Amino acid sequence: MTPFAHLRVEGVYTGAVRVIDKGRGAVVSEPQSEILCALDGIVGDRHFGFTKSAGVRERAFHSKGTPIWNPRTWSAVSVEELAEIAASMSVAEVKAEWLGANLLFSGVENLTLLPPLTRLVFSSGAVLLVYGENLPCVGPANVIKKLGTSLNAASSKTFGKAAAKKRGLVGWVERAGGIRPGDTVEAHLP
Amino acid sequence: MTPFAHLRVEGVYTGAVRVIDKGRGAVVSEPQSEILCALDGIVGDRHFGFTKSAGVRERAFHSKGTPIWNPRTWSAVSVEELAEIAASMSVAEVKAEWLGANLLFSGVENLTLLPPLTRLVFSSGAVLLVYGENLPCVGPANVIKKLGTSLNAASSKTFGKAAAKKRGLVGWVERAGGIRPGDTVEAHLP
Repeated sequence: MTPFAHLRVEGVYTGAVRVIDKGRGAVVSEPQSEILCALDGIVGDRHFGFTKSAGVRERAFHSKGTPIWNPRTWSAVSVEELAEIAASMSVAEVKAEWLGANLLFSGVENLTLLPPLTRLVFSSGAVLLVYGENLPCVGPANVIKKLGTSLNAASSKTFGKAAAKKRGLVGWVERAGGIRPGDTVEAHLP
Repeated sequence: MTPFAHLRVEGVYTGAVRVIDKGRGAVVSEPQSEILCALDGIVGDRHFGFTKSAGVRERAFHSKGTPIWNPRTWSAVSVEELAEIAASMSVAEVKAEWLGANLLFSGVENLTLLPPLTRLVFSSGAVLLVYGENLPCVGPANVIKKLGTSLNAASSKTFGKAAAKKRGLVGWVERAGGIRPGDTVEAHLP
């Protein structure tokens, strides 16, 4: 089967909570040499598990705290979209780990537009399935304000506006495997 | 949120293997008064489990026997589409259990066309997610040949042709709950 696009893994990360500013928590991930994707998630990551407790993102259908299937054991962003977000916010750069991402890809202009159930087939053997766009949240805005180098505050957009349709993808694991920087990835549309 | 369509549960079933004809197995399900959907599948059903061993349906991406995430803990057909299949095959009826279905719905003309990640919200509290169309297999053809009452063999189509785009849906469970005949269902598009 011919892939729709080819990607390259530029970085892999696992998430940890780090509080920045008083009372304002934000999830920041940390670079790793490899991440291990089991069928129930990335080993050691905070989003691990076939199930989760429904939160604010799920409130359209589930009351807070209800046990539900976990659609997002991984999140991914791209070099291309992070550069666009940084330009819109007038900061020198936006790092993948500031958004709590597990994967940084390069190779496609609009990673976030890959549709649900797109299959990401890694050279290592892992296969990830796309659930959808990562919904906006306030955490990254706080992190970028704290850690980003402002170039021109006057022309900067808020994170929410800058990151619309560029915030990356979330999804779950279809086939287990390790993933390292340098791995190549075939993206197959559903 | 306004649902795209309203369905009604006409029957619920769990699957068991029953061999018909020598050497020709076919999966036939059995009517129940209620099915219990856990997050990892329908309790007591043969497709239960967050994971499965890759089979012939997954061969485009996975070698046989590889452990993968299980996209189909349930399957559903509709009264409307079964009537169309029966008419095309010139048999008096095609029963949901002959296709090994877990759920029989009424209320939409083309159940099978509901897209992936459609959310089926049951009055009981269960929520199911759609993976996609149930792919054709040879089992139902054998069952219908054995159990169906032929009306006009000359005008009959094969099951594969008669059931194209009418074979129903498969998917997995997002929120647990019991499902009974008579329950109502809201279908929300992704």
